Amino acid sequence: MFLKNCWYVAALDHELTDGKLLNRTVLGEHLLLYRGESGRVNVLNDRCPHRGALLSQGRLEGDGVRCMYHGIKYDGSGKCTQIPGQDMIPPKLRVRSYPVLERGHFVWVWMGDAAKADPASILDLRYLEDSNWKGIPAYLHYDANYLLIVDNLSDFSHLAFVHTKTLGGSEEYAYVSKPSVIERLENGFRVERWHWDSDPPPFHQKVIPDKTAKVDRRNIAWMTVPGIFNMETLFAPAGQGKQTAAAGGAKEYRNCQFMTPETERTTHFFWSYLNNFEGEDSTISRSLLDSLIEGFMEDKAIIERQQKTLEEDPSFQMLGILADAPLAHFRRVLDRLINAEQNSGATQPAEVRPTTAAG
Amino acid sequence: MFLKNCWYVAALDHELTDGKLLNRTVLGEHLLLYRGESGRVNVLNDRCPHRGALLSQGRLEGDGVRCMYHGIKYDGSGKCTQIPGQDMIPPKLRVRSYPVLERGHFVWVWMGDAAKADPASILDLRYLEDSNWKGIPAYLHYDANYLLIVDNLSDFSHLAFVHTKTLGGSEEYAYVSKPSVIERLENGFRVERWHWDSDPPPFHQKVIPDKTAKVDRRNIAWMTVPGIFNMETLFAPAGQGKQTAAAGGAKEYRNCQFMTPETERTTHFFWSYLNNFEGEDSTISRSLLDSLIEGFMEDKAIIERQQKTLEEDPSFQMLGILADAPLAHFRRVLDRLINAEQNSGATQPAEVRPTTAAG
Amino acid sequence: MFLKNCWYVAALDHELTDGKLLNRTVLGEHLLLYRGESGRVNVLNDRCPHRGALLSQGRLEGDGVRCMYHGIKYDGSGKCTQIPGQDMIPPKLRVRSYPVLERGHFVWVWMGDAAKADPASILDLRYLEDSNWKGIPAYLHYDANYLLIVDNLSDFSHLAFVHTKTLGGSEEYAYVSKPSVIERLENGFRVERWHWDSDPPPFHQKVIPDKTAKVDRRNIAWMTVPGIFNMETLFAPAGQGKQTAAAGGAKEYRNCQFMTPETERTTHFFWSYLNNFEGEDSTISRSLLDSLIEGFMEDKAIIERQQKTLEEDPSFQMLGILADAPLAHFRRVLDRLINAEQNSGATQPAEVRPTTAAG
Repeated sequence: MFLKNCWYVAALDHELTDGKLLNRTVLGEHLLLYRGESGRVNVLNDRCPHRGALLSQGRLEGDGVRCMYHGIKYDGSGKCTQIPGQDMIPPKLRVRSYPVLERGHFVWVWMGDAAKADPASILDLRYLEDSNWKGIPAYLHYDANYLLIVDNLSDFSHLAFVHTKTLGGSEEYAYVSKPSVIERLENGFRVERWHWDSDPPPFHQKVIPDKTAKVDRRNIAWMTVPGIFNMETLFAPAGQGKQTAAAGGAKEYRNCQFMTPETERTTHFFWSYLNNFEGEDSTISRSLLDSLIEGFMEDKAIIERQQKTLEEDPSFQMLGILADAPLAHFRRVLDRLINAEQNSGATQPAEVRPTTAAG
Repeated sequence: MFLKNCWYVAALDHELTDGKLLNRTVLGEHLLLYRGESGRVNVLNDRCPHRGALLSQGRLEGDGVRCMYHGIKYDGSGKCTQIPGQDMIPPKLRVRSYPVLERGHFVWVWMGDAAKADPASILDLRYLEDSNWKGIPAYLHYDANYLLIVDNLSDFSHLAFVHTKTLGGSEEYAYVSKPSVIERLENGFRVERWHWDSDPPPFHQKVIPDKTAKVDRRNIAWMTVPGIFNMETLFAPAGQGKQTAAAGGAKEYRNCQFMTPETERTTHFFWSYLNNFEGEDSTISRSLLDSLIEGFMEDKAIIERQQKTLEEDPSFQMLGILADAPLAHFRRVLDRLINAEQNSGATQPAEVRPTTAAG
Repeated sequence: MFLKNCWYVAALDHELTDGKLLNRTVLGEHLLLYRGESGRVNVLNDRCPHRGALLSQGRLEGDGVRCMYHGIKYDGSGKCTQIPGQDMIPPKLRVRSYPVLERGHFVWVWMGDAAKADPASILDLRYLEDSNWKGIPAYLHYDANYLLIVDNLSDFSHLAFVHTKTLGGSEEYAYVSKPSVIERLENGFRVERWHWDSDPPPFHQKVIPDKTAKVDRRNIAWMTVPGIFNMETLFAPAGQGKQTAAAGGAKEYRNCQFMTPETERTTHFFWSYLNNFEGEDSTISRSLLDSLIEGFMEDKAIIERQQKTLEEDPSFQMLGILADAPLAHFRRVLDRLINAEQNSGATQPAEVRPTTAAG
């Protein structure tokens, strides 16, 4: 059961070049995403209503697509415009289309009631469109439910043990630092955590000249429904952390991660990790991309095994510790929203249900 | 649910040479097919009733087979003839045998009530045994229900889009040609379709000297239960199509395709594509074999993906277009026959049900 | 459904060296086996009760183990001893531990009620700890239910057909030899079988100087619950079989095989095959190891196919022959014990059921 009336990141803009007909499953539905000749991105259900052939195995024609089984053509809105050998087009022969928007290299799709799709409800992450922030958007596929990734990002003490030599830096992080603020929001939570006078973690060391000087490290992270993480990270010279906003001299990162359910047991994981201190050369961005992938692979090994464990024994119930308060709040928020949506009965457009020729 | 009281192609004759004990699943049942020393082909259930070991992992002995787990031997009728270390043979210890016939390189098996097996009910495709028709019988395995292949063969407009550069020739085929006859039969349908004054399709070009002269192309196709397709194809010089039967000068093909369910979701696909214009050299037959495989692989990509789509969303209902009339008729015919057979309660032989030693 | 209140072989001692955290599934439960720094072997449930991460992906610390997701530490008894960043340890946060014992290179685990674990109930196979008997303990994994392997070992006529050229020696074995004693035991059965004046089987030929002289071959085999096979094998010069115990001149083997269910459809198969006639050089042991693996692979091909056959058609019921009397008795004994245990309701320790943080 997923939240439907909201925006999900479904693709990176560079995936939709050269007329690519991209098949991607989102919330268990096969989508076809493509950029038509007009430049506009369209999202259709990737299944020809005639015999169920994939439209992504078809052919781009203008802003439409032709199924290459029997040649039936649809425009970008999903309307059938041609049946070879047949003049009359039955109105029922149409493909569902989905609202779609592009923001800062990410393609967002609305999976619920199209009438409710509100562009303003896309999370406004300005650094993604600000040329002062540099980063390389990227993608990983997870064989795990998206909430296990949300959980992972909800407790940063895992940095100490999972990412000691990559994103974390030391096991000390789990013992001496704690969230200084945990704010429960209506659509998620916000956490602030300082680590004073610490060694710079490996991913940061790789992109700064002075690799040994102690730093004050601050993370301010938001997790919001349906599964969007963004974080502001600051490294200040040790002792200057509290004054940094005013005093400068710090290095900062912006980090967004989008967990989009592919199915109940798999996830599309999009992210961008940006910095504000490199010049035109992308060396720092590329180093950070490598570091993040290295760290995410560490998460992936644990999270995908968790998924298997939960599937093997569905009766297993996790036992909370204090650090789980944010993730527990997030799951309650999400459950409440999903229940409300299901009870309103308005998650799906009134869909045309064709009768079968073979019935 | 399959039609049981009918003949299915289960093997090619060359598969049963050198004492091969062939395991092949048909309608979900494991069959053992082999040619005994007498030359006669036998078909047994491929499971020793003692402990369930496969007889196809056993040893051919004369016209019988010995299970190589504990050495129990069965004759070609499935009767147990020896239990090592035990004198008395319990009458229940026998293996089900299936009626079997050979016709024109194909081995046919009767899957229902053996008492009803009528050799005369095998479709009489004389060109398969006529030395004027040359061809190479062949086999492909499909990860798809057999009816999706039947559907594919029921609407030739797919030639235009799936097989443009192989078996079809042009997209024009879907726009300018139509069935001129659609005949509903009690056991299937018959379709006749002309394409006048057209370029010869690639598979035909490869085997004729004049590759550019326009042709009149005629296909007369029959689809009959449980899933047998056969077709007479004629290419006449453009303008002579209608007079050809009398005037000669045409090149003709005969085409049979047998869709035999392996399971509900997989199919054995046997075929032979024959011509009447090559000499003793088999160059033309081999070129046609390659062309057909090339074309069938195009179908396979679409049909196997259809199968996945239907499995992923069993609620999906196909929406018919006018061209689906033949396939819709065929499915109605088949459903009616299966229902009648199920209601008669006579699909299975009264089978010996042994009690277990471990019970 | 498995027998729980009994000892199962779960590992070989050499698997637990160098701090290895061994994950092994037994009776469907994920176990973590490891040798702590004190030298003692511990067995814990291999799942951190916090978020379900595998402890075998964690880190050995002393005699305990630390989960490397959020750093929670457990001692060898499963008690939580540290939560980084949290002072109070909830008593519910503990991992189940399992009684464990080492005997003659094999590690035994008790899967049921720990209060009932009785070391004296481990089958006393003295040759495993007797330096006069030489052998190399080994392991194979089976994709088959353990009882199919028990069945296999319960009727030695299969030696004649499955192992003709390896462990058996001739098909004659099935025709001229029979069990001379079949003793029904409360916990299994005992079978004695002679093969007089026979050629030595290939595995034996390879390790004796005179490869052609006829032998009297005697096997005395016990099968006991839950799935333990052991056998005394004697080869005497032909004609001296009956006097051997007194007269000497024979060569003897001891053979134990442990079938431990991994899941309902897979099995851990441990064994050791020992002889009393090699010196310090291990040539004979290594030859016998190779011969046994060669023979077991022959069994595996048949047994794993049996498993598939039974899964494909759960309605299939095996039909007994006379030679199945021992295996039928064994299954009755085991069924009776499992039923008694289930009805007593005492198979599982009263387990701590944590509430979820995310609930």
